[in-house]
Amino acid sequence: MPEALLDDISHRRYNPLRGSWVLVSPHRTKRPWQGQQEASSRIELPSHDPSCYLCPGNKRAQGDVNPDYESTFVFVNDYAAVREQQAEYEPPAQDGSLATRLLKAESTTGKCYVITFSPEHNVTLADMPASTIVPVINKWTSIYTSHLDPHSPLAKAARPTTIPPSGSTNGSLDSQPKQQHRYMQIFENKGQAMGCSNPHPHGQIWTTTSLPEEPEIELHNLRQYRREQGGSHLLEDYAKLESEKGERTVVENSSFWAGCPWWGTWPFEIMVVAKEHKRALVDLDERNKEDLAEVIAEITKRYDNLFETSFPYSMGIHQAPLSGTKEEIDASHFHMHFYPPLLRSATVRKFLVGYEMMAEPQRDITPEQAAKRLRDCGGELYRRKL
Amino acid sequence: MPEALLDDISHRRYNPLRGSWVLVSPHRTKRPWQGQQEASSRIELPSHDPSCYLCPGNKRAQGDVNPDYESTFVFVNDYAAVREQQAEYEPPAQDGSLATRLLKAESTTGKCYVITFSPEHNVTLADMPASTIVPVINKWTSIYTSHLDPHSPLAKAARPTTIPPSGSTNGSLDSQPKQQHRYMQIFENKGQAMGCSNPHPHGQIWTTTSLPEEPEIELHNLRQYRREQGGSHLLEDYAKLESEKGERTVVENSSFWAGCPWWGTWPFEIMVVAKEHKRALVDLDERNKEDLAEVIAEITKRYDNLFETSFPYSMGIHQAPLSGTKEEIDASHFHMHFYPPLLRSATVRKFLVGYEMMAEPQRDITPEQAAKRLRDCGGELYRRKL
Ligand SMILES: O=P(O)(O)O[C@H]1O[C@H](CO)[C@@H](O)[C@H](O)[C@H]1O
Ligand SMILES: O=P(O)(O)O[C@H]1O[C@H](CO)[C@@H](O)[C@H](O)[C@H]1O
Repeated sequence: MPEALLDDISHRRYNPLRGSWVLVSPHRTKRPWQGQQEASSRIELPSHDPSCYLCPGNKRAQGDVNPDYESTFVFVNDYAAVREQQAEYEPPAQDGSLATRLLKAESTTGKCYVITFSPEHNVTLADMPASTIVPVINKWTSIYTSHLDPHSPLAKAARPTTIPPSGSTNGSLDSQPKQQHRYMQIFENKGQAMGCSNPHPHGQIWTTTSLPEEPEIELHNLRQYRREQGGSHLLEDYAKLESEKGERTVVENSSFWAGCPWWGTWPFEIMVVAKEHKRALVDLDERNKEDLAEVIAEITKRYDNLFETSFPYSMGIHQAPLSGTKEEIDASHFHMHFYPPLLRSATVRKFLVGYEMMAEPQRDITPEQAAKRLRDCGGELYRRKL
Repeated sequence: MPEALLDDISHRRYNPLRGSWVLVSPHRTKRPWQGQQEASSRIELPSHDPSCYLCPGNKRAQGDVNPDYESTFVFVNDYAAVREQQAEYEPPAQDGSLATRLLKAESTTGKCYVITFSPEHNVTLADMPASTIVPVINKWTSIYTSHLDPHSPLAKAARPTTIPPSGSTNGSLDSQPKQQHRYMQIFENKGQAMGCSNPHPHGQIWTTTSLPEEPEIELHNLRQYRREQGGSHLLEDYAKLESEKGERTVVENSSFWAGCPWWGTWPFEIMVVAKEHKRALVDLDERNKEDLAEVIAEITKRYDNLFETSFPYSMGIHQAPLSGTKEEIDASHFHMHFYPPLLRSATVRKFLVGYEMMAEPQRDITPEQAAKRLRDCGGELYRRKL
């Protein structure tokens, strides 16, 4: 059986979602480590921190006061990377000169939101029961819905039961943007190692008039697969295959498969894939949302259990663009990526540096080895057992 | 003038070398930082460390003893990511099943070398005068040459004056590999923040039977530009344009332009481009090599001066593949990338995390602002002035 051999030899694996390769060196985990150690996260936090700009009732940078929210709270980022209003920029017309050929730019506007997952300062998704993650998914859904192109086929799918966006101190959340946004990126950076500067459980939502690189690459490959395979969906096929194989599965339920993808780059990278074709959050029914909450709860708990630490990661949702052609929207398939940096312990991470930046992503342990370890550390959250 | 406007508004810039976009948010540098701080590098090191596996005369992990080398020293990595010999792997034949369609792998063999830049344990390229960097460039050239496909047009260009690979404790350096390698990636990870575990000045050289992702993407775009622009070279055109414009230039001499590229992702990213068309190291004459050494010395010194710290980075050389079609080799253009993580100070770095991983690379200060700061910190190395 060829796959067992891949446990021993260096090889490359193909990522059909990105159309790219990753170098796998399973024998390389043996090398000693004398490099940088991450700070371990054994700091006790209060459940309310008066100096935290995310806690209920506190004042933020621009003077706004957070409401006494009870589950989630959304506001426009005080230091947004993109804004709705800015000076107009018209790129110079292509005149055959080197400058117009090689120095290309285009204006992008958009909006950046922050979303808290809980009023409690000292919890993370790993501490939250699935039932309290459902409101986070509902809030993501309502923000996504309120930014949909009214002409999108998805606008019809958006159920009237969708919770309207609320809990914001500025009215601009609900209103349609001046210019239709093309894409919405929902994500979370967790832990200092992932550039997160506030432990209060929260994520971000950036929406832009442009379709960013990664979703564009994925959409291109999803569409191509669909055309070439007589209408079937790459990720639906993939979830089916992985669910049958089992060796890369971490957790699964009736709506979602979650596991270490064949082509994963980060040591404990996980992908969550809707088993049936779902274009976006608006396609999830109540049962799907409960299943998604369960999967998120299970992944984050297993991550923390693995090295008995608050496990850093970046995670994000890929789904249909807010506006696009019917073909683009129909080819989209709801999924999530979890990219965690740790490799060997709470303090030793994988660096994607020199070779990885210049040549090709490279990983040491295989996805099958990673999935097995994550399967084996279910049960109660380690912190609760202490 | 449209470019001044780009100092203020969020926009995307196009990278014609990768065919990708980067989001630029110049106004965003204002946000306060309460996140992770890097360790600053104020440790005094001895010029010879008996426990360093790279210092002359010391013993390495597998028992080999380093010679008393005087400038550079090359050996096969004791923990290589790819090896020359391993079990044969034949991917299963495509049978139309989901598994053969979605779980693709291929075997890769190759070789990983370590190259020291100096026998002194406590120097870096920034401390080394250009004249002592020339032997490093000569060693890179001789290793590249000794791995060239004998049928490559480059094999003829390789001057007989090329210094033969030496200073190795195992004879396998000079010998032709069993299987012709396709690509050689020369790179350096400097500093703990870039996953480097030993301060002794050194780089790495990985060669593989496969053409890795990044060089493949670049080669694709270089070839396409050449076809579309009647034979002219993208990077030759680019160096000419930037040298005229000047606003993104950091240092330049008669052979090389070095500056913050229009489409750079990292805050102080620098690209070094041969001004005339050079396919690979073997195309550089003695003058070009002295000029390259000068540029490397200037960049690394300015980096250290910027925040008065030993500035971490990953750098690497992109050049013609070791074997390939004549068209591939002729379209290749020698250049180097420097990717440094620091953003605001010796201890605050840029994190390419959530949005950057899920959606699109995002930068805060513009390349023009970065280039100006690096132009302004020439002169003597700050450590020498203390
Ligand atoms: O080879 P080293 O220095 O042990 O390791 C370093 O560089 C490699 C190549 O960029 C990376 O894969 C490793 O993650 C990094 O720690
Ligand atoms: O927006 P934050 O949390 O201040 O910043 C963090 O996330 C952003 C989006 O991934 C990154 O651009 C920043 O580098 C990172 O520090």
